Amino acid sequence: DFLRALEEVHPLFGVSEEDLERAVEGGIIHFSPHIDKILKNGRDFVNQVKTGTTPLLSVLLHGPHGSGKTALAAKIAMESQFPFIRLVRPVDMVGMNEIQKIQHLSKIFTDAYKSPLNVLVLDNIELLVDWVPVGPRFSSAVLAALKGLMENKPPKGRPLLIIATTSERTVLQQLQMYFKMQIPVPNVQTQAELGVIMRDSGLFSDSDVQRAIGEIEESVGGRGVGVGVQQVLLCMQTAMQDQDRTGRFVEVLGEAIADNGGMGGG
Amino acid sequence: DFLRALEEVHPLFGVSEEDLERAVEGGIIHFSPHIDKILKNGRDFVNQVKTGTTPLLSVLLHGPHGSGKTALAAKIAMESQFPFIRLVRPVDMVGMNEIQKIQHLSKIFTDAYKSPLNVLVLDNIELLVDWVPVGPRFSSAVLAALKGLMENKPPKGRPLLIIATTSERTVLQQLQMYFKMQIPVPNVQTQAELGVIMRDSGLFSDSDVQRAIGEIEESVGGRGVGVGVQQVLLCMQTAMQDQDRTGRFVEVLGEAIADNGGMGGG
Amino acid sequence: DFLRALEEVHPLFGVSEEDLERAVEGGIIHFSPHIDKILKNGRDFVNQVKTGTTPLLSVLLHGPHGSGKTALAAKIAMESQFPFIRLVRPVDMVGMNEIQKIQHLSKIFTDAYKSPLNVLVLDNIELLVDWVPVGPRFSSAVLAALKGLMENKPPKGRPLLIIATTSERTVLQQLQMYFKMQIPVPNVQTQAELGVIMRDSGLFSDSDVQRAIGEIEESVGGRGVGVGVQQVLLCMQTAMQDQDRTGRFVEVLGEAIADNGGMGGG
Amino acid sequence: DFLRALEEVHPLFGVSEEDLERAVEGGIIHFSPHIDKILKNGRDFVNQVKTGTTPLLSVLLHGPHGSGKTALAAKIAMESQFPFIRLVRPVDMVGMNEIQKIQHLSKIFTDAYKSPLNVLVLDNIELLVDWVPVGPRFSSAVLAALKGLMENKPPKGRPLLIIATTSERTVLQQLQMYFKMQIPVPNVQTQAELGVIMRDSGLFSDSDVQRAIGEIEESVGGRGVGVGVQQVLLCMQTAMQDQDRTGRFVEVLGEAIADNGGMGGG
Amino acid sequence: DFLRALEEVHPLFGVSEEDLERAVEGGIIHFSPHIDKILKNGRDFVNQVKTGTTPLLSVLLHGPHGSGKTALAAKIAMESQFPFIRLVRPVDMVGMNEIQKIQHLSKIFTDAYKSPLNVLVLDNIELLVDWVPVGPRFSSAVLAALKGLMENKPPKGRPLLIIATTSERTVLQQLQMYFKMQIPVPNVQTQAELGVIMRDSGLFSDSDVQRAIGEIEESVGGRGVGVGVQQVLLCMQTAMQDQDRTGRFVEVLGEAIADNGGMGGG
Amino acid sequence: DFLRALEEVHPLFGVSEEDLERAVEGGIIHFSPHIDKILKNGRDFVNQVKTGTTPLLSVLLHGPHGSGKTALAAKIAMESQFPFIRLVRPVDMVGMNEIQKIQHLSKIFTDAYKSPLNVLVLDNIELLVDWVPVGPRFSSAVLAALKGLMENKPPKGRPLLIIATTSERTVLQQLQMYFKMQIPVPNVQTQAELGVIMRDSGLFSDSDVQRAIGEIEESVGGRGVGVGVQQVLLCMQTAMQDQDRTGRFVEVLGEAIADNGGMGGG
Ligand SMILES: Nc1ncnc2c1ncn2[C@@H]1O[C@H](COP(=O)(O)OP(=O)(O)OP(=O)(O)O)[C@@H](O)[C@H]1O
Ligand SMILES: Nc1ncnc2c1ncn2[C@@H]1O[C@H](COP(=O)(O)OP(=O)(O)OP(=O)(O)O)[C@@H](O)[C@H]1O
Ligand SMILES: Nc1ncnc2c1ncn2[C@@H]1O[C@H](COP(=O)(O)OP(=O)(O)OP(=O)(O)O)[C@@H](O)[C@H]1O
Ligand SMILES: Nc1ncnc2c1ncn2[C@@H]1O[C@H](COP(=O)(O)OP(=O)(O)OP(=O)(O)O)[C@@H](O)[C@H]1O
Ligand SMILES: Nc1ncnc2c1ncn2[C@@H]1O[C@H](COP(=O)(O)OP(=O)(O)OP(=O)(O)O)[C@@H](O)[C@H]1O
Ligand SMILES: Nc1ncnc2c1ncn2[C@@H]1O[C@H](COP(=O)(O)OP(=O)(O)OP(=O)(O)O)[C@@H](O)[C@H]1O
Ligand SMILES: [Mg+2]
Ligand SMILES: [Mg+2]
Ligand SMILES: [Mg+2]
Ligand SMILES: [Mg+2]
Ligand SMILES: [Mg+2]
Ligand SMILES: [Mg+2]
Repeated sequence: DFLRALEEVHPLFGVSEEDLERAVEGGIIHFSPHIDKILKNGRDFVNQVKTGTTPLLSVLLHGPHGSGKTALAAKIAMESQFPFIRLVRPVDMVGMNEIQKIQHLSKIFTDAYKSPLNVLVLDNIELLVDWVPVGPRFSSAVLAALKGLMENKPPKGRPLLIIATTSERTVLQQLQMYFKMQIPVPNVQTQAELGVIMRDSGLFSDSDVQRAIGEIEESVGGRGVGVGVQQVLLCMQTAMQDQDRTGRFVEVLGEAIADNGGMGGG
Repeated sequence: DFLRALEEVHPLFGVSEEDLERAVEGGIIHFSPHIDKILKNGRDFVNQVKTGTTPLLSVLLHGPHGSGKTALAAKIAMESQFPFIRLVRPVDMVGMNEIQKIQHLSKIFTDAYKSPLNVLVLDNIELLVDWVPVGPRFSSAVLAALKGLMENKPPKGRPLLIIATTSERTVLQQLQMYFKMQIPVPNVQTQAELGVIMRDSGLFSDSDVQRAIGEIEESVGGRGVGVGVQQVLLCMQTAMQDQDRTGRFVEVLGEAIADNGGMGGG
Repeated sequence: DFLRALEEVHPLFGVSEEDLERAVEGGIIHFSPHIDKILKNGRDFVNQVKTGTTPLLSVLLHGPHGSGKTALAAKIAMESQFPFIRLVRPVDMVGMNEIQKIQHLSKIFTDAYKSPLNVLVLDNIELLVDWVPVGPRFSSAVLAALKGLMENKPPKGRPLLIIATTSERTVLQQLQMYFKMQIPVPNVQTQAELGVIMRDSGLFSDSDVQRAIGEIEESVGGRGVGVGVQQVLLCMQTAMQDQDRTGRFVEVLGEAIADNGGMGGG
Repeated sequence: DFLRALEEVHPLFGVSEEDLERAVEGGIIHFSPHIDKILKNGRDFVNQVKTGTTPLLSVLLHGPHGSGKTALAAKIAMESQFPFIRLVRPVDMVGMNEIQKIQHLSKIFTDAYKSPLNVLVLDNIELLVDWVPVGPRFSSAVLAALKGLMENKPPKGRPLLIIATTSERTVLQQLQMYFKMQIPVPNVQTQAELGVIMRDSGLFSDSDVQRAIGEIEESVGGRGVGVGVQQVLLCMQTAMQDQDRTGRFVEVLGEAIADNGGMGGG
Repeated sequence: DFLRALEEVHPLFGVSEEDLERAVEGGIIHFSPHIDKILKNGRDFVNQVKTGTTPLLSVLLHGPHGSGKTALAAKIAMESQFPFIRLVRPVDMVGMNEIQKIQHLSKIFTDAYKSPLNVLVLDNIELLVDWVPVGPRFSSAVLAALKGLMENKPPKGRPLLIIATTSERTVLQQLQMYFKMQIPVPNVQTQAELGVIMRDSGLFSDSDVQRAIGEIEESVGGRGVGVGVQQVLLCMQTAMQDQDRTGRFVEVLGEAIADNGGMGGG
Repeated sequence: DFLRALEEVHPLFGVSEEDLERAVEGGIIHFSPHIDKILKNGRDFVNQVKTGTTPLLSVLLHGPHGSGKTALAAKIAMESQFPFIRLVRPVDMVGMNEIQKIQHLSKIFTDAYKSPLNVLVLDNIELLVDWVPVGPRFSSAVLAALKGLMENKPPKGRPLLIIATTSERTVLQQLQMYFKMQIPVPNVQTQAELGVIMRDSGLFSDSDVQRAIGEIEESVGGRGVGVGVQQVLLCMQTAMQDQDRTGRFVEVLGEAIADNGGMGGG
């Protein structure tokens, strides 16, 4: 509404080709069979669209903050090797008003309608419509446009796979944004999974891992870990500043786990 | 409101003549006597208008998400063979502001006032007025215009049949949008109905159908199927990617049924 | 608010002289003494204004949806044979913004101030101020203007009778729109009244009427009919498409009665 | 807000000098000692301002709809014989936007600041700020301006008496509009008071009055009359259309009394 | 918002130098030790700023409507004899839009930043941000600006004392407007205090005062007087119109006390 | 919204280089081990970013009003000796509209993207998005922009440390503003801590400190002090105006402590 006065519609920050790659910069660690299942499902949906069976398919990856949704969506999109792949992120629309956002989104879809095989990643889709839980507030206009665009059958021979991500699944239900398929993306849940990630990093010896898992088990007990893979990787980085890497890792990860349900968590 | 700055009123996406045909692309499978009843009623209303008995008749097709409302409305409209038939969809108004939407709708009605026999399909009519349950929000201006247009008696000799569809019947009541006649469009409700659809597809052998029905019966028990025909057809498409077509169909349909009342359902 | 950009204030749809006549196209059937009482009261108010006793008189016809308010108001207005008679309907203001609506209404009143005897019919007055129960929403500006206009004493020698109609009497109370006089317009309430209407149509034999009344009595029992004369006339039209006219009439009227309190009703 | 586009600030309807006189067109009938008390108090406040003791005095006349507030305020203002007297009514601002309303009100006050003795009648002051109980809604901007203007000390030697009227005293409290003095204006409350008014009209013989009072006493019993003098006068006018003047008067007044607490009442 | 179209930012009513003096026109009557305490505290804060100990100090005078806040704030400001003293009142901003109000306030602060010693009186500070309890409503933009300005450290060598007044202390808490220091300003609370004010006026003999106090004690009993000094002074003015000055004073003051908690009160 | 008309985007008040220094003008008194811990943590985060381990790190300093958040954030930022350090304060955006605020913030981030090492201090971050608890209100547009900017990975080789401060941590949770790390900043909590601050000032002798602590202990008892270091310093300044410095200090600090939970407190 307010941005009405802005004249130019191009994003403040370029939508560079490396965006998709940067989204999986931290790699995909196969710390749980869920990860493999998600990627396999993704490949199946890609095929369903590629073979023309389903000309329009929308899939929702939903899970807690930092659980790896964007990385997984980007991975599936890149592996499709479709000629047209676009990552659509809220930050790309900073500084746009509602009209400009709608034009921006419409352009992405009409661009897709020109390519023979298409995949769009709508990252944090609730933020694309400017959702804020306080109020709640959101842009009805962008929402209406996005719903219209997502349900619009593409022209013949232009099949389209839409992969959306969200940590606010119930919000999408309230907004009546429908998806044909849904895939949950879970947090790191067990000490074993944590161990896989620690080992994968190459920063910890086996005994470090044993010690860390043991200490964390002590503090969280039977409740499970329940923290996003993103946060686990950050805690490792913080721990690297310390002499007692393992001790510091356990400390900051412990705080992160305790904070969950709080600000830093899902 | 926000789109105020847009100068052009033409829809972003052309209102092509094939729209009506594409709406029934998946065909009309006569999986239940309800389907025949709906189509017969539709023909009767077409006649009541055609003969000039009732110069203005509004009919509402209401039912759960994906139950086939749009396909049935399009079917009735096409079968009327009236010289003027228009499908009005929310996506056709993406990128329009409120004035433009009102002008767009007014033009459709005034166009109809020039033709001797007219049928308008107002698809997902609650979305035409930008309804969002959160808030709730909607466009009062478009609503007022649409109510005015729908209750405006057409000029003599220009009878008009309005067929609206909605999955939000109570919303229309709250908005005091009145219809002269109403037709419910039900979900696929019994295993037998499911069997008809499976057989119609030509993808499953009789024993496949038996097995599928049996397994689904087991999981849903006496509660009935309760899923839209649209979702059933999609599940078949997904199942086709799999070697064990029947098994996969049962699996994804099961998830769809379980999700009902949830995001993917009615 | 939204229509701000529109430049022209003339109504999208012409305010033709036939509007009043079309409002009573279905005739006035004297199916109950209430109808005669309403018309007599109307004539008295016309006289009170005509004789100059009361230079400004506002009357409200209120009753359920389809009970015949507009037809009766139009009838009273036409019978007055005043030189200036205007029917003001919400549809006449479709496509106007708030300023334009206020200008439109102000012009109607100032036009009236030039004629020696005036009657204005403000049809569905709650819609003239864009009332929607969801919210609720309405145009404060148009409301303030209309209240001001309705309470403004006309110039000497320009007596003015205002007849408003509404199916939302309590809304008008909440909006503090005051009327000097009020007349209730009831639904068709008894089987006997229904019989009068059926006979008046010339479509049913006496035994048809007996049968219909009997069958309806059975289904509604002692609760009374409770449906608008408008709906009764429509049901007759629908019944005409059927071989068993009477049976079909009973069927669709039965649905209409059952729906009452629902969408199609008052 | 919406009227923003309007360029001219002059009222749609001229603020004629006869406005004050027309406000007391029905005369002031001394049907109760309250009436005399109100007028005396008014004269005292006029003097307090005239003598310069109090350079700024605001008085509120509050009472039910139709109780005679405007007529009494106009009477007090006219009797002051101050050189500058202005009646400010909501209808005078129909078609103005908020800026224009503020400019209009500011101009009235600055005009007053030029005259040696001033009285302003702010009629239905809650409507001057566009108050609607639904919401509630009102114009914060006009309210802020009016509060500022009402509390602004006039220049030396320009004493100002402000007489406001309202039927929404609690609203003014909620809006924190303060008045130095307040005067209640009651309804016609007793049969005796009613008799005074009937006799004053010269339309009824003594026995008519007896009969009317008797019949009304019967229906309202000990509850008192409780109707505005304005409504009583209107009922007389309606009764004049009838042969049995007294009977008809009792009938329509009875309806008015019954309606009280309803739409037509206070 | 609405005033957007206004081009000029200068106040409708000039900010004359006599404003401060007029604010204490009624004098400061030392009717209670609280008054002396308030003035002494004020002098201390003036010194704290004058000596440069505290370069930015904000003080809030809070108390009931009419208790004398503005007069006391003006008194403290004038006694400081600082080279730059400004009284900022809501009425000075009538007819300004939000931008203009922010510019107006910003200019006052930047003007202060040029003078070696500064005191600003922000009178009825909740009205400066257009606070209305119904809603509640207020101008977020002006609020944000005022908070920013009030917490902005002035340039070195430009100490600033801010004295705000309010009768809505809890509102300021809700708006998170913080003040370093707070001073309560009480109503006239005892008969003795009332006697001081009566005597100070020179209008009443000692026996008049005795009689008045006695009669008021009778009616209010042990509850105390509880009325603002402003109202007491007005009641005296009204009483002067009457022969029985004392009797009339007791009468109108009694009404004022009874009204308290009502419209005329704090 | 309202400031739309403003043409220039530069801040009303210059963003001078001394801003950071002025924020720690009162010094950092090491009155508790918490202070040292906060500063050490700050240094660690600075290193984590400096070494490139974490290219984007956001840290939240949260604590009661006046607890020293801004001073500590400024201290950490200055000690980093990064080439690009910016303090972003609400007052810097007074007089900007939403677009301008977004542009202002975007420019700060894009400026940072040009420097090899960056630290931004987002002071009172909830006010940067115009948060007001009444409503609550806030700028969705600025919020969306700020969230986008804060989560946008800077270009390679441009690591960025964001230090935000707030006294409204739960608000940030509600607004879903996430931070990687969080540091609480406590109030002065014990008499011992108070003693350190008093001694640090050089204004009180040891026996003064003993006396003050003793008297305060008496009044607050076991509940602890619970007042911000900022308020303690102000109370000392006020006390300096008095002969009995210690007595006055105890008095005003006592009021401040009592007020806590009230307006002047956290
Ligand atoms: N198995 C995995 N799945 C997903 N991400 C992984 C996995 N293993 C490692 N990662 C890394 O973890 C990070 C996950 O962060 P990502 O931004 O994808 O989470 P997110 O759920 O999208 O977070 P947000 O809720 O903030 O959008 C990425 O850096 C990714 O490379
Ligand atoms: N008997 C049937 N009735 C309706 N549709 C059928 C039937 N048999 C098959 N179909 C196919 O099922 C699909 C129904 O989808 P359709 O879009 O009409 O559902 P809908 O109720 O309008 O969904 P939505 O709630 O999303 O608007 C169409 O592809 C249609 O061709
Ligand atoms: N006695 C009657 N009173 C009113 N209308 C009658 C009567 N007899 C027949 N009619 C016909 O019935 C119809 C009544 O419809 P009308 O539009 O007046 O109802 P309404 O109450 O105004 O409906 P709505 O609530 O939709 O405005 C008209 O076509 C009218 O000619
Ligand atoms: N004693 C009286 N006091 C007031 N009005 C009287 C009295 N006697 C007769 N009248 C007449 O009664 C009418 C009162 O109407 P008026 O418009 O003043 O009422 P009101 O209270 O202002 O109504 P509203 O609430 O609609 O503003 C006037 O026509 C007036 O001339
Ligand atoms: N001791 C006193 N303190 C304050 N005002 C006094 C005192 N004695 C006399 N007065 C007079 O009483 C009046 C107080 O009115 P003032 O406008 O200051 O009250 P206020 O509290 O600011 O009212 P409001 O709530 O309307 O802003 C002034 O005219 C002042 O000169
Ligand atoms: N240990 C300390 N920590 C922080 N500030 C200190 C400390 N010792 C002294 N100070 C001084 O105390 C003051 C703290 O005020 P500051 O503005 O930083 O508080 P704040 O928590 O940011 O307040 P606000 O909630 O108003 O933003 C500064 O003047 C600072 O120099
Ligand atoms: Mg993500
Ligand atoms: Mg549909
Ligand atoms: Mg009608
Ligand atoms: Mg009046
Ligand atoms: Mg004051
Ligand atoms: Mg701070």
